Amino acid sequence: MKIDVCFSPALYPFYSSGNSKIAVIVDVFRASTTICKALMEGASAIFPVASLEKAKELKSRGYFVGAERNVEKCDFADAGNSPFDYYSEKVKGQEIVFTTTNGTRAIELAAAENEVIIGAFCNISAVADFCRNAGKDVLVVCAGWNNLFSLEDTLFAGLLVHRLKCSGNFETSGDSAVAALVLWQQAEPDVKTFLHQSEHAKRLFTHHLEKDFDFCLAQDTLPMVPFYDKSSQKILF
Amino acid sequence: MKIDVCFSPALYPFYSSGNSKIAVIVDVFRASTTICKALMEGASAIFPVASLEKAKELKSRGYFVGAERNVEKCDFADAGNSPFDYYSEKVKGQEIVFTTTNGTRAIELAAAENEVIIGAFCNISAVADFCRNAGKDVLVVCAGWNNLFSLEDTLFAGLLVHRLKCSGNFETSGDSAVAALVLWQQAEPDVKTFLHQSEHAKRLFTHHLEKDFDFCLAQDTLPMVPFYDKSSQKILF
Repeated sequence: MKIDVCFSPALYPFYSSGNSKIAVIVDVFRASTTICKALMEGASAIFPVASLEKAKELKSRGYFVGAERNVEKCDFADAGNSPFDYYSEKVKGQEIVFTTTNGTRAIELAAAENEVIIGAFCNISAVADFCRNAGKDVLVVCAGWNNLFSLEDTLFAGLLVHRLKCSGNFETSGDSAVAALVLWQQAEPDVKTFLHQSEHAKRLFTHHLEKDFDFCLAQDTLPMVPFYDKSSQKILF
Repeated sequence: MKIDVCFSPALYPFYSSGNSKIAVIVDVFRASTTICKALMEGASAIFPVASLEKAKELKSRGYFVGAERNVEKCDFADAGNSPFDYYSEKVKGQEIVFTTTNGTRAIELAAAENEVIIGAFCNISAVADFCRNAGKDVLVVCAGWNNLFSLEDTLFAGLLVHRLKCSGNFETSGDSAVAALVLWQQAEPDVKTFLHQSEHAKRLFTHHLEKDFDFCLAQDTLPMVPFYDKSSQKILF
């Protein structure tokens, strides 16, 4: 099996091969982490929508809406993009409409031809197990920031490359997977300090979201694998 | 001043800021290196064209044509994309029409709003000097391979980031510049061995182009800075 890494949703078309893979969508800060958290707290489904207009329309129809743009919760929404916005008293049994700056687009793109799952540090071991058992090639799709490369998503990709290579059944395909692995190996002794260099960390700190930064980098706190169900267009667990 | 790195021509639109920068176009294997070599051997100009059709038309009008697709010289052309195809007996005084798999598109994109120069390991110190003296932000545009991320172009970017940061007048802007620098620092003790992992090295070796691989990684063998002249649409020195 092969594992490859796509550094930006804008590059996804060049990784589209016509073969169905496991596409691991990652938006460490914070959509992937928050989706895992909401489902773990009992949300019945996450319904990703790309536009604020669509999210507003669904809000008016009674949905619980999570909406963020540029790190901030949108005024009309019930919650933003912080994992701490989603706890059981609030979300249990709820179907959550969710729109974020970067994560939604990557899911929509990859779902056209792949089996889509959601990955982050919070579920890395569960994701690695899922990939090992699936018997398919793996493509990590980094959500990035406004289509730009992001360090945190790349480090997640590098850790997944490391885990799958160690299993003996996977090899890297493409230079980006090699780069992600090398970057992970450099960051691994102190991921938080390494990521202080990242643009997204700076944005989080500007908004006093140090708690989110820490939560999003903790490994295996939410051991489950959300998947995108094509027929309902929702993320389930 | 800031230095940023764009990992693929397909990502260039997201780096376009409206401010004119120095855009350093890099296609280490092999277009950037070959352009430097041809000019150093006395070619009067390089006329980059995107399509084979355009190159064929100019060939029929008497131009010396360098044309490559997928590592191989095109049949109709006078030369391919190897720096060894371009030596003074052949190219002195010639205006060379040049089309390659990846390099040309990056030049055309970046030239719309930036001052475009050509960089590779063969002219790294000259490029670093040029950037230090220009008093503008710098954007390295990696040609990549069919719009995919490439290790060798990224290592060049990382070395340029390193050189400019050391000068004290530059800082990185964006996660890709940080990643390029970290990758360079890992590769630096033995760049050739590091790049044996790269897809493009494998392609070169399949075509028995070990000599090209070595030449393209040697530093400062061609100490000059080719620039793109917008009015003539040619690369001059």
